[in-house]
Amino acid sequence: MSTFTDELKRKDIRIGLVPTMGYLHEGHLSLFQLLEGRCDLKAASIFVNPIQFGAGDDLDKYPRDEIRDVELLESVGCELVFAPSSDEMYPADFQTYVNVEELSKPLCGKFRPDHFRGVATIVLRLFNITGCSMAAFGLKDYQQARVIEQMTRDLNLSVELAFGETVRESDGLAMSSRNKYLSKKDRELAALIPKSLEWVKEQAASGVSNYSEIVAGMREILESKPGVEIQYIEAVNPQTLEFQSEVGEGVQILIAVYIGGTRLIDNVRISMSGVKRLV
Amino acid sequence: MSTFTDELKRKDIRIGLVPTMGYLHEGHLSLFQLLEGRCDLKAASIFVNPIQFGAGDDLDKYPRDEIRDVELLESVGCELVFAPSSDEMYPADFQTYVNVEELSKPLCGKFRPDHFRGVATIVLRLFNITGCSMAAFGLKDYQQARVIEQMTRDLNLSVELAFGETVRESDGLAMSSRNKYLSKKDRELAALIPKSLEWVKEQAASGVSNYSEIVAGMREILESKPGVEIQYIEAVNPQTLEFQSEVGEGVQILIAVYIGGTRLIDNVRISMSGVKRLV
Repeated sequence: MSTFTDELKRKDIRIGLVPTMGYLHEGHLSLFQLLEGRCDLKAASIFVNPIQFGAGDDLDKYPRDEIRDVELLESVGCELVFAPSSDEMYPADFQTYVNVEELSKPLCGKFRPDHFRGVATIVLRLFNITGCSMAAFGLKDYQQARVIEQMTRDLNLSVELAFGETVRESDGLAMSSRNKYLSKKDRELAALIPKSLEWVKEQAASGVSNYSEIVAGMREILESKPGVEIQYIEAVNPQTLEFQSEVGEGVQILIAVYIGGTRLIDNVRISMSGVKRLV
Repeated sequence: MSTFTDELKRKDIRIGLVPTMGYLHEGHLSLFQLLEGRCDLKAASIFVNPIQFGAGDDLDKYPRDEIRDVELLESVGCELVFAPSSDEMYPADFQTYVNVEELSKPLCGKFRPDHFRGVATIVLRLFNITGCSMAAFGLKDYQQARVIEQMTRDLNLSVELAFGETVRESDGLAMSSRNKYLSKKDRELAALIPKSLEWVKEQAASGVSNYSEIVAGMREILESKPGVEIQYIEAVNPQTLEFQSEVGEGVQILIAVYIGGTRLIDNVRISMSGVKRLV
């Protein structure tokens, strides 16, 4: 892949990359629109990265369908797919890791200790292997987006980043490859997540700015039916991801829940003047 | 610097980099010969990297002479010097570190816990900022050379590495910016280091292959006069840096000592068939 992309770069062909773990949905595919007109060749990677999964995570059962993925990628104008094996990417003596220290600690980092170290390491390597000039990521994984943004700046990478709004199902559930795990009943329960976030937006628009009130209200909605186990609901500074008790100029509300053994995350930006976009 | 080197790369000008902490000596300057004919533009960086110094290390007193350095660099055909400030390189929210985990643990890593994390991080960033196609490092810092080699492979960097033999004073002492710290008496004592390494080479050539014998003999030479405090003498596998009790196909002997408060390191490769080069 490096030999091929080196050749492209010598011809001044700018590569735009969408790194994925495969089992693609509309959320992934929408990211290719962000590359439009800003690069010469659209590329994707498909790689279920073992080092970002912890013990007890769903590495082994993570859904895969590479043939369908490639068809979907072709349909959105993606011309190059990099889909390496784990053995190729992690030879026995592999031992170099990138850690974005502060941003990796809170939120999901509390429950998945080496997750963002694994994400930062593979993303850097995918940037290096493809030599991409730009890359796009989804905002459903908000903490991941901040980790990658910070790494790109701290390590002086010459990769332009673009972040895409979360794409949602008709009932508001954020698209995720992991939604496949949900039973019919769990899928119905999952709609409580976007419902709780919509409620937060309304509260913010009507002037509620207190963290405790917001969390209590969300908790009430999520627990209105049995089956949703809240891992965390947090209100943080959108840049530093530090706890923020007042909405003020803008606060990111992040949530992680378990439904029937499936871990789902989502988030929303709120401010006193209503909802704000990250980018 | 990135804007400038991006422009050079667009013109297909290959940059060769010698990263340094300044206060240059013949060891640094010899590295430019390794770039000869293998790149289009020779560059150097001068940066005393704070994150590779620990508490109690000599960051504050590390010798600096940028004007003389630039003259010396010009004299060996170096056309580009990157000499940033600490504040430029480490803004307040900097938090991304590269760690080559296994190779950073033994030897110097035991006594300088975050040292190689600091080295790997800055070297990656200097590679990224200058966009160099190749880079040269000295083998006096043997563990550092291995850390950088491993990082370059693990992170899929497209930088060709070259390693230069240690350049020595007439009595054999390895050139180092830190030799400046030595008093006249300490400088004389320092000659015991290369003397002990020469003895090791002779022993290996005459068939001695046992680690304990070698270390005991070196210790005897180093402690033949008072004033040399041994931090470590180790025999390790040249690739993995793991302890190796027999010389076998090749073993790297590494040594760190304190003389009058100054920490000096050196190393030698030995094998049953005599001394071997790393590259």
